[in-house]
Amino acid sequence: MTTTPPAFSPSRRSQVQPFEVMDILDRVAVLRAEGRDVVSLCAGEPSGGAPSLVSQAAAALHASGRALTYTSALGIRELRTEIAGHYRRWYGLDVDPARVAITTGSSGAFVLGFLAAFDAGDRVALARPGYPAYRNILRALGCEVVEIDCGPEVRFQPTPELLDAAQAAGPLAGLIVASPANPTGTMVDRAELTAISQWCEAHSVRLVSDEIYHGVTYPEAGADDPRGVCAWEIDDRALVISSFSKYWGMTGWRLGWMLLPEDLARPVDALAGNVALCPPAPAQYAAVPAFAEESYLECDEAVAEFARTRKLLLDNEARLGWGTAAPADGAFYYWADLGTQLDRFGSSAAYAKALIEEAGVAITPGGDFDDRAGGRSVRLSFAAGSIAVGEAIERIAAFHARPHTMATSRVYRV
Amino acid sequence: MTTTPPAFSPSRRSQVQPFEVMDILDRVAVLRAEGRDVVSLCAGEPSGGAPSLVSQAAAALHASGRALTYTSALGIRELRTEIAGHYRRWYGLDVDPARVAITTGSSGAFVLGFLAAFDAGDRVALARPGYPAYRNILRALGCEVVEIDCGPEVRFQPTPELLDAAQAAGPLAGLIVASPANPTGTMVDRAELTAISQWCEAHSVRLVSDEIYHGVTYPEAGADDPRGVCAWEIDDRALVISSFSKYWGMTGWRLGWMLLPEDLARPVDALAGNVALCPPAPAQYAAVPAFAEESYLECDEAVAEFARTRKLLLDNEARLGWGTAAPADGAFYYWADLGTQLDRFGSSAAYAKALIEEAGVAITPGGDFDDRAGGRSVRLSFAAGSIAVGEAIERIAAFHARPHTMATSRVYRV
Repeated sequence: MTTTPPAFSPSRRSQVQPFEVMDILDRVAVLRAEGRDVVSLCAGEPSGGAPSLVSQAAAALHASGRALTYTSALGIRELRTEIAGHYRRWYGLDVDPARVAITTGSSGAFVLGFLAAFDAGDRVALARPGYPAYRNILRALGCEVVEIDCGPEVRFQPTPELLDAAQAAGPLAGLIVASPANPTGTMVDRAELTAISQWCEAHSVRLVSDEIYHGVTYPEAGADDPRGVCAWEIDDRALVISSFSKYWGMTGWRLGWMLLPEDLARPVDALAGNVALCPPAPAQYAAVPAFAEESYLECDEAVAEFARTRKLLLDNEARLGWGTAAPADGAFYYWADLGTQLDRFGSSAAYAKALIEEAGVAITPGGDFDDRAGGRSVRLSFAAGSIAVGEAIERIAAFHARPHTMATSRVYRV
Repeated sequence: MTTTPPAFSPSRRSQVQPFEVMDILDRVAVLRAEGRDVVSLCAGEPSGGAPSLVSQAAAALHASGRALTYTSALGIRELRTEIAGHYRRWYGLDVDPARVAITTGSSGAFVLGFLAAFDAGDRVALARPGYPAYRNILRALGCEVVEIDCGPEVRFQPTPELLDAAQAAGPLAGLIVASPANPTGTMVDRAELTAISQWCEAHSVRLVSDEIYHGVTYPEAGADDPRGVCAWEIDDRALVISSFSKYWGMTGWRLGWMLLPEDLARPVDALAGNVALCPPAPAQYAAVPAFAEESYLECDEAVAEFARTRKLLLDNEARLGWGTAAPADGAFYYWADLGTQLDRFGSSAAYAKALIEEAGVAITPGGDFDDRAGGRSVRLSFAAGSIAVGEAIERIAAFHARPHTMATSRVYRV
């Protein structure tokens, strides 16, 4: 093996901004290796794992020694049919299983969906703050990302007025809406999603609806759409993306799906056979009982624990001592302005670094989700449950009670 | 749900040529559903499944009910270390586990590797005939595919002379070499790969070495490089791509890996976290014992059966009645010119359609691998083993013995 220095350079499109949270996660690992007790509230994933029936099905499948060969590019018929049934159960929708594409997580759905729907140079809009992988995937695929600043006054979600303004700078080809959203947890209701969908139709803009957090929701009793509104309830020309990761707690399995608009069904099929061959076969077979009654009950229990943890946070907002937080209608994120703490630490990245060192609590600085104003905000994931979050609240309150000035916290500046 | 006709259109880059083999596979399914006995030699995958220790590890993992959350974007340390050890075992190479990226099959490695190494507009060369997903992924990512016609006189592999000619039309950014290759099974030896690698270095062309069929090889006793030559034995600036699919028989699991040139390690890490999050976690944990002694023995037994099947084919070439075949140094493909059968049927697609209807044997027409001259050739996969292939040889010989003229076979013309 030679050791000559490389004469090559990486592509320009691979120059992706590193995530601020990576520094925090690295520090968590180091501190824990040193024996420090760290409460990590960074992870956007449930810790409870898959429904029991799914784990059992996977164990039986592998114990049988059956050869797990390629499936169809869009997945096994049985699981596509179960997913179609899920749309009847939650939304009263009739979905043809042929319009369900199983994918390698929602990540696989985004790559395939973006490739099928958008060409290089196409302008695709999304809310800022938002999930950073949208923009990084789109840019890697040559699309122009149009970030729409969505503040608390619009509950961090795009509106027809904001879309008009974005369109004025040049025609949009697509719009991504996430409800519940990451990092804010806010949701668009039926009237809002209808207005967005109609705006998209009027302007020939493809709507991509990220519904991966559906079911991880905190509706009031008797709410009309307790699981979220599916974009196909309004218009089946939207690309709907969902996943087994959140409600079903199966992040590491890498299994998601798309509902395919009619015109994208063949292109996605052809692309999937080339880009991915097929989604993971063992996960597909094992996921079939994810739609059994018993599995829904188990998942709803996990959501009930998220709801208790969320209530604990909301009841302790004063003690937490941050500024204004997003409503957290769904998902398991609490997105807050740092308020007076910002004056003491200067930025959310500096604050997060001080918090992990001095209080042993890890949260995600806002810059990953918003490269413009994210330096003012943090995301706390309450997926870890009420015991971890309760402990974190105590530690954060004690941390704030200690003297900190810009000078003493200088070491944490970034 | 509305039923208005779609006002949107798919992207131009999603207009991927459908595979000719899909018609054959659809027909296999229909005929089998009608009760017909069809020998299918289309699949590029072993039917034996994963090593026993891997299946057992997967069963135990799922039986434990352990939550399978995201891993690091480049995979779990333990498996990266095992893969590094594999390079010592087979090639005598010291590989730093930090330079091993676990991916979602080799498909995931191609997408990440191409994104990291090449920008839109970059010219990337590959052999024709070749694996069609290379060109389809590259085109979807905006690269210009430069197909180099490689015939039997160069054993279907690029040479420095052919590369000079391709470079003369415009500078290349990359070259993909597959050894053993799909569909031809030919391999480049150490001297040939060295010449290619040196040519790439001299012209600042990134070499991508597809080594997914390594180990599925038919060396003569005492051969120098019985498993194949790894590009890193020559120059570690190559992007080496491999997989658990072929030698380990784990196609459906979607698990592969890349050896990362130093300059691509960070870009691939950053891209992977956005594009894929992580490779499938259950498969990663289960694959660790794929590198146990017992697993190697089991895989070598599967290769021995491929070797017996290959010998059966070679011993029966005269009865098979096709034209010249590629040497099939490795993989489990037999790529042959149709010889006199071409005069009777006009094209490999027409021949393949007639063969499945009249003889109940499914093979892959060559057009999928070569859109210029593939109409003359077919690919027979002998992964199905000696019983299936023996039966196919009898059927094909009997099929050829029946009268066929261009007129009678017109119904199969495409």
